[in-house]
Amino acid sequence: MTSMKQSFRETTAVITEHPAFIYSIITLILINAVIVGLETIPSMYKEYGTWFLAVDRLLLTIFAIEIIMRMIAARPFRSFFKSSWNWFDFLIVASGILFAGAHFVTVLRVLRVLRILRTISVIPSLRRLVDALLLTIPSLGNIMFLMSIFFYIYAVLGTMLYRDIAPEHFGDIFLSLLTLFQVVTLESWASGVMRPIFAEAPWSWLYFVSFVLIGTFVIFNLFIGVIVSNVEKANEEEKNAAEDKKEKERHEDMRKLKDEVRELKELLLEERSSRHIR
Amino acid sequence: MTSMKQSFRETTAVITEHPAFIYSIITLILINAVIVGLETIPSMYKEYGTWFLAVDRLLLTIFAIEIIMRMIAARPFRSFFKSSWNWFDFLIVASGILFAGAHFVTVLRVLRVLRILRTISVIPSLRRLVDALLLTIPSLGNIMFLMSIFFYIYAVLGTMLYRDIAPEHFGDIFLSLLTLFQVVTLESWASGVMRPIFAEAPWSWLYFVSFVLIGTFVIFNLFIGVIVSNVEKANEEEKNAAEDKKEKERHEDMRKLKDEVRELKELLLEERSSRHIR
Amino acid sequence: MTSMKQSFRETTAVITEHPAFIYSIITLILINAVIVGLETIPSMYKEYGTWFLAVDRLLLTIFAIEIIMRMIAARPFRSFFKSSWNWFDFLIVASGILFAGAHFVTVLRVLRVLRILRTISVIPSLRRLVDALLLTIPSLGNIMFLMSIFFYIYAVLGTMLYRDIAPEHFGDIFLSLLTLFQVVTLESWASGVMRPIFAEAPWSWLYFVSFVLIGTFVIFNLFIGVIVSNVEKANEEEKNAAEDKKEKERHEDMRKLKDEVRELKELLLEERSSRHIR
Amino acid sequence: MTSMKQSFRETTAVITEHPAFIYSIITLILINAVIVGLETIPSMYKEYGTWFLAVDRLLLTIFAIEIIMRMIAARPFRSFFKSSWNWFDFLIVASGILFAGAHFVTVLRVLRVLRILRTISVIPSLRRLVDALLLTIPSLGNIMFLMSIFFYIYAVLGTMLYRDIAPEHFGDIFLSLLTLFQVVTLESWASGVMRPIFAEAPWSWLYFVSFVLIGTFVIFNLFIGVIVSNVEKANEEEKNAAEDKKEKERHEDMRKLKDEVRELKELLLEERSSRHIR
Repeated sequence: MTSMKQSFRETTAVITEHPAFIYSIITLILINAVIVGLETIPSMYKEYGTWFLAVDRLLLTIFAIEIIMRMIAARPFRSFFKSSWNWFDFLIVASGILFAGAHFVTVLRVLRVLRILRTISVIPSLRRLVDALLLTIPSLGNIMFLMSIFFYIYAVLGTMLYRDIAPEHFGDIFLSLLTLFQVVTLESWASGVMRPIFAEAPWSWLYFVSFVLIGTFVIFNLFIGVIVSNVEKANEEEKNAAEDKKEKERHEDMRKLKDEVRELKELLLEERSSRHIR
Repeated sequence: MTSMKQSFRETTAVITEHPAFIYSIITLILINAVIVGLETIPSMYKEYGTWFLAVDRLLLTIFAIEIIMRMIAARPFRSFFKSSWNWFDFLIVASGILFAGAHFVTVLRVLRVLRILRTISVIPSLRRLVDALLLTIPSLGNIMFLMSIFFYIYAVLGTMLYRDIAPEHFGDIFLSLLTLFQVVTLESWASGVMRPIFAEAPWSWLYFVSFVLIGTFVIFNLFIGVIVSNVEKANEEEKNAAEDKKEKERHEDMRKLKDEVRELKELLLEERSSRHIR
Repeated sequence: MTSMKQSFRETTAVITEHPAFIYSIITLILINAVIVGLETIPSMYKEYGTWFLAVDRLLLTIFAIEIIMRMIAARPFRSFFKSSWNWFDFLIVASGILFAGAHFVTVLRVLRVLRILRTISVIPSLRRLVDALLLTIPSLGNIMFLMSIFFYIYAVLGTMLYRDIAPEHFGDIFLSLLTLFQVVTLESWASGVMRPIFAEAPWSWLYFVSFVLIGTFVIFNLFIGVIVSNVEKANEEEKNAAEDKKEKERHEDMRKLKDEVRELKELLLEERSSRHIR
Repeated sequence: MTSMKQSFRETTAVITEHPAFIYSIITLILINAVIVGLETIPSMYKEYGTWFLAVDRLLLTIFAIEIIMRMIAARPFRSFFKSSWNWFDFLIVASGILFAGAHFVTVLRVLRVLRILRTISVIPSLRRLVDALLLTIPSLGNIMFLMSIFFYIYAVLGTMLYRDIAPEHFGDIFLSLLTLFQVVTLESWASGVMRPIFAEAPWSWLYFVSFVLIGTFVIFNLFIGVIVSNVEKANEEEKNAAEDKKEKERHEDMRKLKDEVRELKELLLEERSSRHIR
């Protein structure tokens, strides 16, 4: 009985890891992507709306089966949920099923669009790329915290000082944060945000210029920091590989030389003793 | 007969590779460029339009002859089409001749302008530079694919959500892609695109801020990745050149030392044996 | 008596360095931050304004006590003021107390907001990060001076030439400097600043294009300079650590080899002398 | 007579190289800068205009004397004009004198402002910085030429295609070049330049998007190229300095070792010969 279960599990594992299986899934995700794109064309949606829905239901079912198969294929069942990519697949598909009967049409359609993200989780090279990108985030932790403090202080100050002059930009602390994000991307920071306020509050330039200078300076340093640490890391790895080989060669050379010198010494000692005996 | 053909081919090769020939072609391309520029001045075009056309026809004929000569000069005829630069030259000139009688005035004039691009294919240093630039593209492949998925998802979402609020920016999926390209260059993303939508859809900030953050983050990483891999490659090459020399010196030193030690040993052994004989 | 003072000082030092003490202070600063944020909501301020003021007074008192304790804990009293972070803490809190009775409501509230900056001075990792960021400033000294000369010259020229055409951008030297700062961030430099002037002064493009080219070129070089010097420094440190170890190993190897050769020589000399005696 | 001339020349050289002399000149240039700034304030100019003119004449005279002295101090007279910085000083001051009587008030005042640039030529550290910045330009030569071809082609195309739709942006080839420069800085490229044209010419997005992509791609590569070559150069220099030292040490070690081994050999040979004699 257990062995039958076992063989069933193994067969499933073989199927889910087969390239044909993976390519079929990729194809289906791309079909899903195309449908989701076609749905945005009103005339298409009117005529083929029900067809699109039917295909979508079918795809969702197939994706559900695929994930169940991958769950079965996982050796200990829990190991499936050890990979965050599996979690991601599971949540995207499960939420699609959960909300299937719901009336929140927008939520449903957004979920359908997000299913395109599965392209990343299915193609290994993309998965690795995203993993690499996400790995750079922790190293930004401290500077992000600093940035948050800095944003919060300026947002509170901006709300306090310019709430009445520019309610659309600094009406409340949330609007201020959004405006400051706009300013740090340098988008219309002067023409759109500062100049109207500057016309009424002559010292406001200090607020904006200091924010732009500090903000870009911090981003600038963050940028440099990441570049430097990456270059360093890359150099180190590469160098270690190359130098390890050289080190070994050098050691080998030295070892041989020492051996020869030692042999010489032994020869001399031997000689001496032999002569003493004589 | 064949040897005559052969010598004709060789003569053509000598001519096409002669600096004077190349400089003449460069000069003619520059004349072509100047004419194309002068044509944009309406008063000039009115008065000298027929002249310009005549010169252009002449230049086109010369370029056609030039390319035919380079084809003849190519040892096996097919080798001419192995270089993508030759293809480029051929297509630019051939299309000019093909459309010469056509009535699509705009197409004709655009082709005439594109002929200026031949400056690149004719000047070796520019050709190498463009080759080097194009070589960096394949390494961007994966990140470009990721970027496309990301653009497509946001375009579909944007069309779905903001089609009615901002038809000029998110009217259809194509317009959305264009708008997202504008947003990723940070041009008027807030003042022009987000704020009008934000006034009606209060959660739209999430869409735009997340897009800007992810978009710039990915570009940022792409940038760093290319810098790091280039620095690394450059270091490696340079280092290898320098260290190879050193390694050789070290090996040479070691070799000599070992030889001397070995000589010593031989001396000792010789001595011993001589003494034993004694 | 002195020993009692001494022990009191030591007890205070133990308390102020205790993690529980530091975490309490961080918590209080964050409470301060939240209150300062809540105050920006008019309805909240109306209802709980007096409560906020009371809590703020309490926090200010606690912070004052904290700093006095840290002053007492400092071995020689003066050493407290040797750290610029302590100066920073002292000034932020002292100014809060000084202006407490004043009628400058805005100044008071700004000071209250700036107290959030103490998060940086209290959390060591943030303190180190800011220290590191500030350390990059001196290396920018020369280029900043160059940039100032360049800004000043363009500001004087801009004021002279475009004061009458665009008084809102080049009305006086101060406005010109602000406009040039906007231009160097590339924000609306053409659409907002140059084009209206260009419509009246046909040579103004030279002023703006040259400014943009020089400005971005200098910033570009500054950027590269900082990256290069950082990469270099990082490489050097890392390499030194790695190579020092190797150097030591090599020296050690050489030393041993020489010792053995010397021993050989001694053996030979000994031998010879023994034989001469014989 | 010649020796008197000689000693006069030497005295002048001593004076012009004396720190006090250099600091006085720097001070006078700064005074010149302040005056030029004050002149932009209309009320100041009205009241003290004649004073400013008088001081300016005085400063110009002093600068003229300074440069004549430096000319005298130059060992062979021609060597003065070998430094481009001296040329720069000479031209700035000479043009000021030449146009002194002219009626081109604007030209005169611009020259007076440009005299502030002498701060750079007088302070050695700034001079070196600017020299370093200018040295990076030649390495950009090829890419600049490529950029020009690319700009020219797009300018001709833009003028041809959009002259009638957007005469203020693409009215003639010069306006097109200016607009393209604006587009490559990403300033209002979409909201200000592309969208109005896009409303009438539906294929114009191809023109703008391709230009932005190619333009930023080339600048991106230029940036990376300069960074990489600088990092490489810096690494090389630094490494060479460090490794040269190590190499010397290693050679020295090897040399000593070989000497000892040779000594050993000589000892052995000596021994042998002595024994043979015996």
